[in-house]
Order: sequence, then structure tokens, then C-alpha cells
Amino acid sequence: MSSVQVVEAKKERGPLNGVDTPKLFATINVVKGQPDLAKFQFRATNRWVKGTHSRSRIETFSGAGGEHRHTGEIEFNADHPEVLVGSDKAPLPVEFLLHAIASCITSGIGNVAAARGVTLTEVESTVEGDIDVRGILGLSDQVRNGYNEIRVHFRIKGDAPPEKLQAIVEQSTARSAVYDVLTNGTAVRVTAEATRG
Amino acid sequence: MSSVQVVEAKKERGPLNGVDTPKLFATINVVKGQPDLAKFQFRATNRWVKGTHSRSRIETFSGAGGEHRHTGEIEFNADHPEVLVGSDKAPLPVEFLLHAIASCITSGIGNVAAARGVTLTEVESTVEGDIDVRGILGLSDQVRNGYNEIRVHFRIKGDAPPEKLQAIVEQSTARSAVYDVLTNGTAVRVTAEATRG
Repeated sequence: MSSVQVVEAKKERGPLNGVDTPKLFATINVVKGQPDLAKFQFRATNRWVKGTHSRSRIETFSGAGGEHRHTGEIEFNADHPEVLVGSDKAPLPVEFLLHAIASCITSGIGNVAAARGVTLTEVESTVEGDIDVRGILGLSDQVRNGYNEIRVHFRIKGDAPPEKLQAIVEQSTARSAVYDVLTNGTAVRVTAEATRG
Repeated sequence: MSSVQVVEAKKERGPLNGVDTPKLFATINVVKGQPDLAKFQFRATNRWVKGTHSRSRIETFSGAGGEHRHTGEIEFNADHPEVLVGSDKAPLPVEFLLHAIASCITSGIGNVAAARGVTLTEVESTVEGDIDVRGILGLSDQVRNGYNEIRVHFRIKGDAPPEKLQAIVEQSTARSAVYDVLTNGTAVRVTAEATRG
């Protein structure tokens, strides 16, 4: 057996694409036996800075039976661009939906490919979303406030036939949390505590 | 007339809360006369890094009859946390939905308050979203992949009665692009170009 073959055999059993596949399968098995561990709560806090500029912190979440604190990036700004009378410190809130859908399906692609023994070499995507801003400007009740359509296009390369790579994108989309929310919607409750001061 | 009164009179006519109110109204009037200017396209590109980690760039968009380039922050990571077998370089994709909803309604609050002559002193919000991850782990077809519910709670302070501040939050929610997409959903088309390599 050549050293190349040894390395390949090892890759199939162990982590692939930077995904710790054995740990992923172990996690799935543990949750299968204890469904309560599957209950997650994600959180953000946001503070208005000025005009259309605000800043969020995404610090803690609960799940897998405990409380957790993120160790990576946690602070994110959002703003309107000048053409929409903002100061353009950061992307618009609606643009973060595009980051969310692309990154969610891409995370899934990393995981699903690893689970299927496919080594990926490249995954890139472009996302476009169309909005008629007459809705948010209050100029028309016939025009919705949000996106009319979002299009995500992937370019994926790996050591498998194109059909197998396509199927990985399809499975990742079918199991994407962001895809589900953006296509089906969810309940959003907004409350406020107002004080003169 | 005292100097305080002069300052107040000026504030009512001019920018408020960092919002260039005259420019905002002028923009609304221009779009009213030329609805084609209201057509915006937002965009993101995303590149897989490793495992569940990817990075998006939000650089250009079109609207108001032209092409635009953001001048502020444009690069954003996303990842899974360790408990979901990721490297926690950044928040989960679904957490960016929470940043999006909080910042979208908050931008609206800045604008609507300025338009109504209310000076804001503080706007803070907390967002929570509940997900049962048995959906994304493929353990149940009865459990949805995305959030079951998202709750946004605002604390708002300004120089107006609580009811007027509450009404500003309500109007901003009613005209929020992100609120519309998250509650009503939208069409999302996913395509892929796959290559062995």
C-alpha cells in the first residue's frame, strides 16, 4: 500500500473538509436519544447609535442542555447607505439576510459533503435580492416591504461527479434553517417598553 | 425668545436623531414621482473557508437608478459553535437573522421618530429565537428547520409620551423589510454549477 493510499483511507474514516465527521455523527446520535438537547435559543442585543446606524452583539445562546458564550466575532453594525439617507457604516439590515442564507447553506454543504465522503475544493456563491423600496418609504400599500425574490447561485467543486455535488447543495438547502425561515416565514413578536426621558 | 427655544425651533425643521429629515422627505418625494428609482437589488458573495465557516462580502448594490458601492464594513464571517461541531469563528447564520430584525426596526425608529419631531435618547432591543435542531440534524420530519418564534423587545426613550414612542415602534415594525420577509417569507431560488475538481 502506498503512503498516498494510507492517507486516503484515513481521510475517509476521520474528519473531512474541516468537519469533525465522527463528532458530528456522535452528536446526532446523542440528540436522537435525548430530544431535549435539541432545544436551542439564540439571542442578540442591539443598541441604536445614530440615524439609521445600530450595533448588535451576539454573545450567548442556550442549547444542548446548557448556556454557551461565543468565542469568535460578536459585534455587528448595520446602517442605511447614503442613497437611502444613512451614513453607510455597514450594510443594510436586509443585506444581512443574504449573508445568512449563503452562509447557512454553505455550512450545510461542508457538513453534508463530509458525511458523504466528498472532499470539497471550492464552494462559492452569489446572492441577489430584489426590493421595491416604495414599500418601506410608505409610498404604496400594493408594494411589499421586503424582498420579492432572492436568488442564490453556487459554484461547487470536489472529488465527486457533478450530480453528487448538486445533490449535496440540494440536501443542504432542504435542511437549512435560514432557507426555512426565509421561504416559510415564522412568528415574530415585537414588544416595547417606552419611557419619556 | 430664549436661546433654548431657538435651538428647538431649528431642530424641528432640520435633522433630528442624526437623520437628515429634509433629505429623507426630498428622497421620498423624488421616488413618488419616479417609481423606477425605487427598484433596488442587494447582493452578497460568499466563500466557504473550512468546515462550517464561510465568509461573505457585501460590496455593491443597485438602486435609485444607479450602481453603488458600500464605504463601510463589507466582510462578515459565519460559523457553527463547537457544540454544533463548528469552530465558532463567528455567529451562526440563523443568528444574523436576529441582528437583521433588530437593526431593521431600529433604523425605522430613527427615521420615523425624526419625521414625527421626536428626539430619541435611547433605543435598545433584545432578540430571542427558538429552534429545535432536530430539524437541521435530519432527526425529525415533524420538526421545522428554522425558528419556531422570534421575540424582539425594545426599550425606547425620548421626549414624547410613552404612547407616542410605542406608536413609533409599531410604525417601524409595520414598514420593516426584514419583518416582512421573516413573517411572510419570500421566494428563494437556489441553483448550482458543479464541477469535479
